[in-house]
Amino acid sequence: MSDPTTEPEIAELTRLMREFSEERDWTKFHDPKSLILALMGEVGELAELFQWIDADDAVARFAAPQRRARAGEEIADVLLYLLRLADVLDVDVAAAARSKMAASRSRFVVLDVRGTAPERP
Amino acid sequence: MSDPTTEPEIAELTRLMREFSEERDWTKFHDPKSLILALMGEVGELAELFQWIDADDAVARFAAPQRRARAGEEIADVLLYLLRLADVLDVDVAAAARSKMAASRSRFVVLDVRGTAPERP
Amino acid sequence: MSDPTTEPEIAELTRLMREFSEERDWTKFHDPKSLILALMGEVGELAELFQWIDADDAVARFAAPQRRARAGEEIADVLLYLLRLADVLDVDVAAAARSKMAASRSRFVVLDVRGTAPERP
Amino acid sequence: MSDPTTEPEIAELTRLMREFSEERDWTKFHDPKSLILALMGEVGELAELFQWIDADDAVARFAAPQRRARAGEEIADVLLYLLRLADVLDVDVAAAARSKMAASRSRFVVLDVRGTAPERP
Repeated sequence: MSDPTTEPEIAELTRLMREFSEERDWTKFHDPKSLILALMGEVGELAELFQWIDADDAVARFAAPQRRARAGEEIADVLLYLLRLADVLDVDVAAAARSKMAASRSRFVVLDVRGTAPERP
Repeated sequence: MSDPTTEPEIAELTRLMREFSEERDWTKFHDPKSLILALMGEVGELAELFQWIDADDAVARFAAPQRRARAGEEIADVLLYLLRLADVLDVDVAAAARSKMAASRSRFVVLDVRGTAPERP
Repeated sequence: MSDPTTEPEIAELTRLMREFSEERDWTKFHDPKSLILALMGEVGELAELFQWIDADDAVARFAAPQRRARAGEEIADVLLYLLRLADVLDVDVAAAARSKMAASRSRFVVLDVRGTAPERP
Repeated sequence: MSDPTTEPEIAELTRLMREFSEERDWTKFHDPKSLILALMGEVGELAELFQWIDADDAVARFAAPQRRARAGEEIADVLLYLLRLADVLDVDVAAAARSKMAASRSRFVVLDVRGTAPERP
């Protein structure tokens, strides 16, 4: 068990999901395709929370403690399956995210795109 | 700018996405419903990477450096939109994920569920 | 009310969803973004049905009448939101699908691709 | 080959996808889990089309012929994978959708729900 005061957060959450899965002998279900289906299930629950709410009211509506907690749960579910997937694939998520941010900063030059939504190809 | 040696990882990545969005004046596009659609777009790209690959070969196939990097990019994209959503909703993702793990440990008692996939309701 | 013996199926199902929504004054919730989130909710439920099942057993497992009915319900939910979306956008789904099939037949020439999964770009 | 003047639309589109898959020897890739991942890929592309567009403008923006055609293509892609999935599972989609509409009419009584978005559990 790592020292929780020094273990980076993403490594810690990844470890919690791995230990949880190993203790229940569930790692055998955790091939990448199955994990992406599970992730989709959680994204679907997140989508359902917001589907019929007016887009402009969504932040205010979810400022109520119970609703915020509910959104937090669904976001956590998505995160945990995503970290489990990264673990199974031996992907360093934090490094990949930092590298992606650097690439996006180069690709979307502030002066070119300021205030404009990027068009999809 | 926080000290990168002490800032927790999730807070750091959340901040990178927030600064990126603010510099481009894109925060106006980032209501929760729009961010969930963007997240779905990235989950779709992740799904496409794996769709036709045999489930049992998926980990081995993605052990090749280029493929692993590709999976890492898509996982990073999902993570970054998820953290942006949590930021907009003022949700503490790390706390929510730790709390969810504790709830799952209580709900799925090892002796009851060991080796069995939980049935969906 | 159209004659059910001559009304094409997709038009009929689209009409049933439209009438259902109008009778409940729910069309005001049915902007495209909200409908895509609702569609995601149903796709997530479909994914959850299959997530932990072995890919090679999935067809056999879902041949049992209750499970097949359950899968049918989730597929129907996805279809109905998809047709509602097409209706709101005034898209002729059947024509679009026929046209897409013709394009795919040209794009994936049998002799070139036979037996090989198309690589994602 | 059935008579196109009498073959129901959903059966016709299902048959087109089946013939397309068989000619290319791609049915071996079409287990349910893989098809749901492919469906997710197409749902993701649909989501990306709309993600940064103002919800209230979305219908007007997609009334332009090129954009409507683009939305039609993505909707068609989702539909075709959904019908392929139903075919593989031997599910009668049209019957399931009619039955679901009947159930929803009973569940959401007009007088109770008129004008109100159903809360998610």
